[in-house]
Amino acid sequence: MAQVDQKALLEFVLRQGDNTLVLGHRVSEWCGHAPVLEEDIALANTALDLIGQTQMWLGLAAEIEGEGRTADDMAFLRDAWDFRNLLLVELPNGDFGRTILRQFLFDAFSAIYLPLLTKSADPRVAEIAAKATKEVAYHLERSAQTVVGLGDGSEESHARMQEALDYLWPYVGEMFASDGVDQAMAEAGIGPDPAGLRAEYDALIGRVLSEATLRIPEDSFAHKGGRNGYMHTEHLGHLLTQLQWLQRAYPGCEW
Amino acid sequence: MAQVDQKALLEFVLRQGDNTLVLGHRVSEWCGHAPVLEEDIALANTALDLIGQTQMWLGLAAEIEGEGRTADDMAFLRDAWDFRNLLLVELPNGDFGRTILRQFLFDAFSAIYLPLLTKSADPRVAEIAAKATKEVAYHLERSAQTVVGLGDGSEESHARMQEALDYLWPYVGEMFASDGVDQAMAEAGIGPDPAGLRAEYDALIGRVLSEATLRIPEDSFAHKGGRNGYMHTEHLGHLLTQLQWLQRAYPGCEW
Repeated sequence: MAQVDQKALLEFVLRQGDNTLVLGHRVSEWCGHAPVLEEDIALANTALDLIGQTQMWLGLAAEIEGEGRTADDMAFLRDAWDFRNLLLVELPNGDFGRTILRQFLFDAFSAIYLPLLTKSADPRVAEIAAKATKEVAYHLERSAQTVVGLGDGSEESHARMQEALDYLWPYVGEMFASDGVDQAMAEAGIGPDPAGLRAEYDALIGRVLSEATLRIPEDSFAHKGGRNGYMHTEHLGHLLTQLQWLQRAYPGCEW
Repeated sequence: MAQVDQKALLEFVLRQGDNTLVLGHRVSEWCGHAPVLEEDIALANTALDLIGQTQMWLGLAAEIEGEGRTADDMAFLRDAWDFRNLLLVELPNGDFGRTILRQFLFDAFSAIYLPLLTKSADPRVAEIAAKATKEVAYHLERSAQTVVGLGDGSEESHARMQEALDYLWPYVGEMFASDGVDQAMAEAGIGPDPAGLRAEYDALIGRVLSEATLRIPEDSFAHKGGRNGYMHTEHLGHLLTQLQWLQRAYPGCEW
């Protein structure tokens, strides 16, 4: 394995862990509020899987950083400007349909990206990806089915899903907006450049969204700034106040 | 002035300060989001007045407590179970109409209660009440006018205001649910027992709500537990994560 820029590797790992942390928190907000019991439990399970992946990614990030911090420290004691998640995952849940569609758009990416990471030149990355891949395949199956059920459902559910897609679509492009970190990872054999995965992604979501009778917006404008930490939406700060409350109010609290 | 139970006096003062703090924060959430610019500025001014009153009440509370804390400590470093505000003021804003109606229901109480506090046997209480009374008279004038305008407005605005009143009504009764603290204050001449103010309150809001063509629900059930600290709604905890974020994340931070 070639010598790897540890700063770039840290950025790369934070991107994975912050995506699953922030999306996991968002999904957990549904706990006790979902429209039917089965969905409530399914969403809670999805959130748990994502937080489990977070534990591994942020644990690795802390190890790479080498300053004695833990996965918990990374999750609970960084501020908004330190986060490297996609803007997509920090957006408010909206209604159940929008939550499921956001999940589908993220699952579809993960289902393509994570299997490639299982071949990473960094065995720690490969191991986490291997553990996460099975969960993500199941997440995708579920979210895709539900997107089809709601999109090709009643007049109201169809309209809501189309509205959700119109709202979320400008946040899809950021997943493929690669930069120097991605290039360094690709050169070191640690992970693929996401830019090269767009065609496969478009084909996958195209099939599902077509079956869901949803129209993909033509505008290709993409909001960016999350994964490179340049600028998050205002929603991330508010999310962190709740996510981090306990460790902020009771520093070092254990149970 | 008779010897006053300092614990009861502290509870009494916290109730005033926590009401204005929590309502002030809720109203401030509208900043930059109100439907028209004039309302945005009016709401921000109302919030500022309430936070100004909070500064005085919680400053007095800290003085009575006598443990060296400041008004800021009281606002930013207590947890939900320490708060003594009415449940009414911690409820989510909902739409603009519900926010205004909640404001009116609180203003109407304050406009009756605060002038009586200006005659308090405790000169510190009397002084704060005297400063707040003028602001509150203006708040009431504004919120009452807007309630009438929206209630007796379009079909949609009327329906929304009626829905807001149905939602908020079960939280009105707590304002008059007096207990030992209120009795101790009344005996010491520090403040009136709120239970005795209900008839005047009902007359005041009855006039305005009638002009607004709104129907007061017949059910007299009242949610309680805020002003005596027994049990707050889940909304207070979430509110505090945002209200207290800065001092929690950056303890002792000054600017």
